[in-house]
Amino acid sequence: MKHPSRYFLAAALAWVLALSTTVTHAADALPSWNDGKAKQSVIAFVKRVTAKGGKDFVSVAERIAVFDNDGTLWAEQPMYFQLAFALDRVELLAPQRPEWKDKEPFASLLKGDLKAVLAGGEKALLEIVMATHAGMATEEFEKIVRDWLATAKHPKTSRRYSEMIYQPMVELLRYLRANGFRTYIVSGGGVEFMRPWVEKAYGIPPEQVVGSTIKTKFEMRDGKPVIMRLPEVDFIDDKEGKPVAINKFIGRRPIAVFGNSDGDLQMLQWTAAGSGARFMGLVRHTDAEREWAYDRTSSIGRLDKALDEAQAKGWTVVDMKKDWKRVFAFEKP
Amino acid sequence: MKHPSRYFLAAALAWVLALSTTVTHAADALPSWNDGKAKQSVIAFVKRVTAKGGKDFVSVAERIAVFDNDGTLWAEQPMYFQLAFALDRVELLAPQRPEWKDKEPFASLLKGDLKAVLAGGEKALLEIVMATHAGMATEEFEKIVRDWLATAKHPKTSRRYSEMIYQPMVELLRYLRANGFRTYIVSGGGVEFMRPWVEKAYGIPPEQVVGSTIKTKFEMRDGKPVIMRLPEVDFIDDKEGKPVAINKFIGRRPIAVFGNSDGDLQMLQWTAAGSGARFMGLVRHTDAEREWAYDRTSSIGRLDKALDEAQAKGWTVVDMKKDWKRVFAFEKP
Repeated sequence: MKHPSRYFLAAALAWVLALSTTVTHAADALPSWNDGKAKQSVIAFVKRVTAKGGKDFVSVAERIAVFDNDGTLWAEQPMYFQLAFALDRVELLAPQRPEWKDKEPFASLLKGDLKAVLAGGEKALLEIVMATHAGMATEEFEKIVRDWLATAKHPKTSRRYSEMIYQPMVELLRYLRANGFRTYIVSGGGVEFMRPWVEKAYGIPPEQVVGSTIKTKFEMRDGKPVIMRLPEVDFIDDKEGKPVAINKFIGRRPIAVFGNSDGDLQMLQWTAAGSGARFMGLVRHTDAEREWAYDRTSSIGRLDKALDEAQAKGWTVVDMKKDWKRVFAFEKP
Repeated sequence: MKHPSRYFLAAALAWVLALSTTVTHAADALPSWNDGKAKQSVIAFVKRVTAKGGKDFVSVAERIAVFDNDGTLWAEQPMYFQLAFALDRVELLAPQRPEWKDKEPFASLLKGDLKAVLAGGEKALLEIVMATHAGMATEEFEKIVRDWLATAKHPKTSRRYSEMIYQPMVELLRYLRANGFRTYIVSGGGVEFMRPWVEKAYGIPPEQVVGSTIKTKFEMRDGKPVIMRLPEVDFIDDKEGKPVAINKFIGRRPIAVFGNSDGDLQMLQWTAAGSGARFMGLVRHTDAEREWAYDRTSSIGRLDKALDEAQAKGWTVVDMKKDWKRVFAFEKP
């Protein structure tokens, strides 16, 4: 051994290089995540299912990851953004609908009494959605959504709604896709409300958006075929509806799932019940300063039963305040 | 010019090589197609939409091709294969359902009187489907379909039903995918009847199968989540339903479509009405010897209005007898 120090140095260098490669890999992929349990659990899962020859290896075809949208990929306070869209539509359409002045829930809404509207429950909200989301061809509705997103601003941040997406989740979606996953949205929101913007926001193409739908009808209009949106509910993609829709639209059981509320519990259970390695994650809203803090008693995005089950079963719970370096891309670092 | 003959030879060789390359390309991709108008129209379309910098270039993301299944990708005579499956199920289940002996359409069916069953129209067929396709978890139904396909034989050819797929169409699907297309099934058949076998048969994955559905329900069975199949129609993916389902499941307008009957007319119209290069194709059953010959008056796979419209609008009509060198892979060359 003429130069023992050289061997030592080489070994040390190799070790440092190996270490820095690992760290760089993770840091590059998920820069907005603090290095805690949540981040580590995601990375460990991806490594397990992509390790060739490993016992938990999953073929690319089966690497399906599903994400709730409201409260999981973008914010949902002080009300679901699609509801804000519907309310803006009611104001816009009111001059052509004089009967709304005397008809609930529109009358309260036009007086600015949102509490009275919400007191009408799901029925009132559905009436508002039907009145504002139907009666036009699909292409016209797409344009309406695009125009609204280009102009409407969030009441708290004064940002466009499409800027209210969670930067750490955008990175996570990208990281999964870089590892051969196909990322799907499975949301209670309307499919055609989401498709116009989710590709640019999240990199998720139209055919990977599963959500609630209203009925539509194919017909000829001036000799040209159109698909008209009807004021009738087709499917509500929430709670038990989520695994049902996953089965219908995707036809494969996901191996990874992320939600944030009790509305996601059943798709978490459905994912968990498959064989092999699984990832179940919840985003917990704990950051009243950068975002909002709410869980068990919130009327929007209630997280109660799903939190109990996550804790009992060891699912990953992301603590927004602790786990995320930043919430939105527009925050100052 | 010292060696003019060399230049001539080189030029001739280049020309022959170029020619043979073109011919080889087409011949390799679609060997079971005779070199007629149908084959040429497909190849010309694919070249147009994939030519970089060309005025008809279509991005890979938008290269969506949809195919009907019954009569377009596999045979549908003497009755839809899913109906044959349902009838076999009725016989199998009859001992546990003594009441069927006195109840139509089951009574006629068990006596072997298929005509009486068919006289009951769509209502009778739906009753049979509901009685045989519902009441079990999705995974159990998948197994039932797989088992049936592994054993049942077609009454005319004595081949397995999964062998009754059209070899030229299998080549076409492969050719399109090799050119960046995603190939979807959009069929009146049941989604969960198709998913267990179409990937192996056609290379089409579960998430690219659109079809008719019955309602399903998420529930816990012995603490394990299952999706139960209910005896209730959810959606019939036929005629006007096809563009509606394309819009709902895919969210993009296809640029290529293949059908074989009036049930496909609306999705042909929907595809044709988009902007840019389009391909609309019909398979016409003209070969009574190798397959079946039927069109305007057939009760199964009637091709009447769609044929008129195809001829009026110059859509591609594949004449099975003239355009296909062979229909099924099992034919002797």
